[in-house]
Amino acid sequence: MLTLYFAKGGCSLASHIALEEAGAEYVARKVDFSREEQRTPEYLAINPKGRVPALATSRGVLTETPAILAYIAQMYPGAALAPNADIFAFAEMQAFNSYLCSTLHVAHAHGGRGTRWANSPESIEDMKRKMPEVVTACFQTVDKEMLRGPWVMGERYTVADAYLFTVAQWIERDTVDTSLIPRVMDHRERMMQRPAVAKVMAFEASA
Amino acid sequence: MLTLYFAKGGCSLASHIALEEAGAEYVARKVDFSREEQRTPEYLAINPKGRVPALATSRGVLTETPAILAYIAQMYPGAALAPNADIFAFAEMQAFNSYLCSTLHVAHAHGGRGTRWANSPESIEDMKRKMPEVVTACFQTVDKEMLRGPWVMGERYTVADAYLFTVAQWIERDTVDTSLIPRVMDHRERMMQRPAVAKVMAFEASA
Repeated sequence: MLTLYFAKGGCSLASHIALEEAGAEYVARKVDFSREEQRTPEYLAINPKGRVPALATSRGVLTETPAILAYIAQMYPGAALAPNADIFAFAEMQAFNSYLCSTLHVAHAHGGRGTRWANSPESIEDMKRKMPEVVTACFQTVDKEMLRGPWVMGERYTVADAYLFTVAQWIERDTVDTSLIPRVMDHRERMMQRPAVAKVMAFEASA
Repeated sequence: MLTLYFAKGGCSLASHIALEEAGAEYVARKVDFSREEQRTPEYLAINPKGRVPALATSRGVLTETPAILAYIAQMYPGAALAPNADIFAFAEMQAFNSYLCSTLHVAHAHGGRGTRWANSPESIEDMKRKMPEVVTACFQTVDKEMLRGPWVMGERYTVADAYLFTVAQWIERDTVDTSLIPRVMDHRERMMQRPAVAKVMAFEASA
């Protein structure tokens, strides 16, 4: 049995969807960020980095979205959530996921978590003001250069789709001009038609 | 034949070392950041993101360090650069690499590339001032929580070692207090004893 630690509105949604799509046996446990639960000794014993997602397995705890997504895809090959047998295609999918975590998610984080990287209130405000432009540029790169369609990697759905859908939840809050990223918006709509996605969205909304 | 596009002092060093350790047939081509070569149409045709590393293969171009490192490890299994046959252990290695790219490297980038996320000169200076503290905290997390020893993943050398060694090149420039991260410093020393590492360091220094 796997345990996924997730936060509402967090990037843990991608791993949650992947577990559901994989047909894995798992429980999803909410980490309440509004109560700073991620900094409690109990949670830090699970993930010393104090972040989500964390996936507790019988072998130990995994962290970092791209690693967890690859793990799920490889552990449940029957669900065909990644091109597991094609080293190059798998690496292309990993490159997509890596871009989301190290560039797009980081750009988004400057809107609400600027204190990670600067101290003065003016700097934090400056980051907040610039964030929509930077996040938009990232989504445009995805829209124009990376998203093949209909799914991220082309004809076949993969865990990269769950990850793109997850960061696309932030588009309105980050005031991204959606007219500039029609293919990303279209992808988000398409994702909502998937039963696993709808189920996980409903679960997290009421958690 | 593979072509690695690298920049002196860049995180592409990790992929360069991995190719050398793998015994791959490759050529390393310098992208001259001092002349903004990463923004030329020629280079953008290779990697539209205008960054390094990029690895040109017969199937297409791969980007993003964690994806390229996993690709090299899987394409050259004889070199035993990753626990390829153990899905969980492989994911643990990927989690380590993901942390370096999305957290440690990002912290470092606030020292010299703050204009990515803010506009005013004061904000950029604020980020620069805070950077050593943030980078130090990342290296302490690696030192205390993640680096198993003697190698990152324990007894066996993996591509994660090449990546840690790469970001550890920035320690002095980022004025990290090396007394706080003795195990990382020790690891860096140990890496320099490897012939492949010494060869690649010499090549990049004279490139």
